[in-house]
Amino acid sequence: MDNRQWILVKRPVGDIDDETLALRTAQVRELEDGECLVRNLYLSLDPTNRVWMSDREQYLPPVAIGEVMRGITIGRVVASRDPRLAVGDAVQGVGGWQDYWVAQGGAATKLRDDGKTPLTLYMGLLGMVGCTAYFGMLEIGNPQAGETVVVSAAAGAVGSIAVQLAKLRGARVIGIAGSDEKCAWLVEELGIDAAINHRREKVYARLRELAPQGVDVYFDNTGGEILDAVLANLALNARIPLCGLISTYNATGRGSGPANYGAILIKRAMVKGFIILDYQARYGEAISALAGWHAQGKLKYRVDIVEGLESAPRALGRLFDGSNQGKLVVRVAADTAH
Amino acid sequence: MDNRQWILVKRPVGDIDDETLALRTAQVRELEDGECLVRNLYLSLDPTNRVWMSDREQYLPPVAIGEVMRGITIGRVVASRDPRLAVGDAVQGVGGWQDYWVAQGGAATKLRDDGKTPLTLYMGLLGMVGCTAYFGMLEIGNPQAGETVVVSAAAGAVGSIAVQLAKLRGARVIGIAGSDEKCAWLVEELGIDAAINHRREKVYARLRELAPQGVDVYFDNTGGEILDAVLANLALNARIPLCGLISTYNATGRGSGPANYGAILIKRAMVKGFIILDYQARYGEAISALAGWHAQGKLKYRVDIVEGLESAPRALGRLFDGSNQGKLVVRVAADTAH
Repeated sequence: MDNRQWILVKRPVGDIDDETLALRTAQVRELEDGECLVRNLYLSLDPTNRVWMSDREQYLPPVAIGEVMRGITIGRVVASRDPRLAVGDAVQGVGGWQDYWVAQGGAATKLRDDGKTPLTLYMGLLGMVGCTAYFGMLEIGNPQAGETVVVSAAAGAVGSIAVQLAKLRGARVIGIAGSDEKCAWLVEELGIDAAINHRREKVYARLRELAPQGVDVYFDNTGGEILDAVLANLALNARIPLCGLISTYNATGRGSGPANYGAILIKRAMVKGFIILDYQARYGEAISALAGWHAQGKLKYRVDIVEGLESAPRALGRLFDGSNQGKLVVRVAADTAH
Repeated sequence: MDNRQWILVKRPVGDIDDETLALRTAQVRELEDGECLVRNLYLSLDPTNRVWMSDREQYLPPVAIGEVMRGITIGRVVASRDPRLAVGDAVQGVGGWQDYWVAQGGAATKLRDDGKTPLTLYMGLLGMVGCTAYFGMLEIGNPQAGETVVVSAAAGAVGSIAVQLAKLRGARVIGIAGSDEKCAWLVEELGIDAAINHRREKVYARLRELAPQGVDVYFDNTGGEILDAVLANLALNARIPLCGLISTYNATGRGSGPANYGAILIKRAMVKGFIILDYQARYGEAISALAGWHAQGKLKYRVDIVEGLESAPRALGRLFDGSNQGKLVVRVAADTAH
């Protein structure tokens, strides 16, 4: 059976381009005992994918040159020699940028497929994305009622959940995003208190106006100039969950770090880096809380679906130019089960 | 009565120079009820003094142009209309860079003057310096037995206590200092495991050798290139008590921040800025523990005494060129009490 695969052929310098990945067709191999074959339906595109393509120091081994590109997928079991999984089951795993993958010994996690919950929700609100917002905002940021919370990339997959969780805590929430459309969505649909379009407005000056008492929690997805602008507006005892540094992932050369680093000292602030894999043992707690709020209509979520595995490399670029609207997902194949 | 005073006449740009402060002679005023007059004996010189001279954003109001330079002093009461203090009492307070000061309503704290404890110890090991090392290392850094701890400015007032507290916890301790003499003192006298002379050795490469498993706690007094070298050598879940950024205090212009800031994310590290004034309510707890270890011979301490109030501005520069050997103190007058 033919299996289209995106292979990492060259480590990108700066933005990824048409020479970074190559689409080839391989053959699906025979299953052994304990394995199952999964037809990928959805491929999750995340900023961290760009890090995996590089050979900089990171939290997982980089994808090797010549390997299938790593990615989180949702799919359906089409053949099984694993007694825990049956043909037709919906599963999630690190299925890669390809049509099919062979899941060995529990690498595929069965999803609750009730015919009502869109499967893409499991790679967003009810998956690692949701868990990232949950632990980063509620545990590390820990906003209190009345405090001021700022989130960068606030209209993104993680950011859009993080802002809503802060609102549920009773905080005043300011989102930073890259378009007027995103800012309007944040304020009008998600109900946050204010939004700043960093491509059109001066973040430092706008924060001074919007948060004259300073920023108590800054959920950082971007680093870079936005981080510097927030550092210059911190309140005493601020907390900064450091979730991502997307502004640096395409950077060439060494970069310069936040010029306003000294504010961490003067404002007695705390910066805490975190990687969601460290919370794996507690995903259940987070997802059950998120699902509850979602069912009550208290958490909204949007998914931006791109059609076709062949579109994946170009679509990834949309996370970096900011043109995605919500959680970015590639539809690898139509789901014929429902 | 004549009172020599160092007045801040110009905000320094870069290093302080002969035009930053001017020595003038004023007259001591009459005391009112509740006040006492203190003859300064010792003036504490600390890196933070340089920050107070600037008008950058800081944790106390900057010293105003035309005001007596702010400084912590130890002295003796020479006249009193405060019933809590008698002539001859040894006291500590924010007495300023001058011969005499008038302490109002509890601004002077009486010291335990047993004739055995050198008074300078109260502006070092048994004062705010000791408290800074105590809370920064033991609470924020919180090293565990067997972990690797790195301290910058390790031969300085705070650093030399911080390294010993980490040793008492059973950690492996590496100090970074600016001369071979200081490095030898750290290893041979204070008993730490290794020391790096950052003026002669490559900190990044030496740390790689000395701490191949990475750095669990980095007590940062300096920022700058040393911070970057340590960030590139962090262990997972590292803690970074941020105590000072002496490398930046004389900087002109905006500076660039740590280029390796991204390691905080990848290594799930925590950076926590702190200012010792926030721990005021708990000084007693720290000083009692420090005094206990000192009495048992488990904490060593050295004081570098410069003679004469007139020497203070030049002596402050020694904190920045690293030529001081231990806690830097100016002897303003001889103590004739013992």
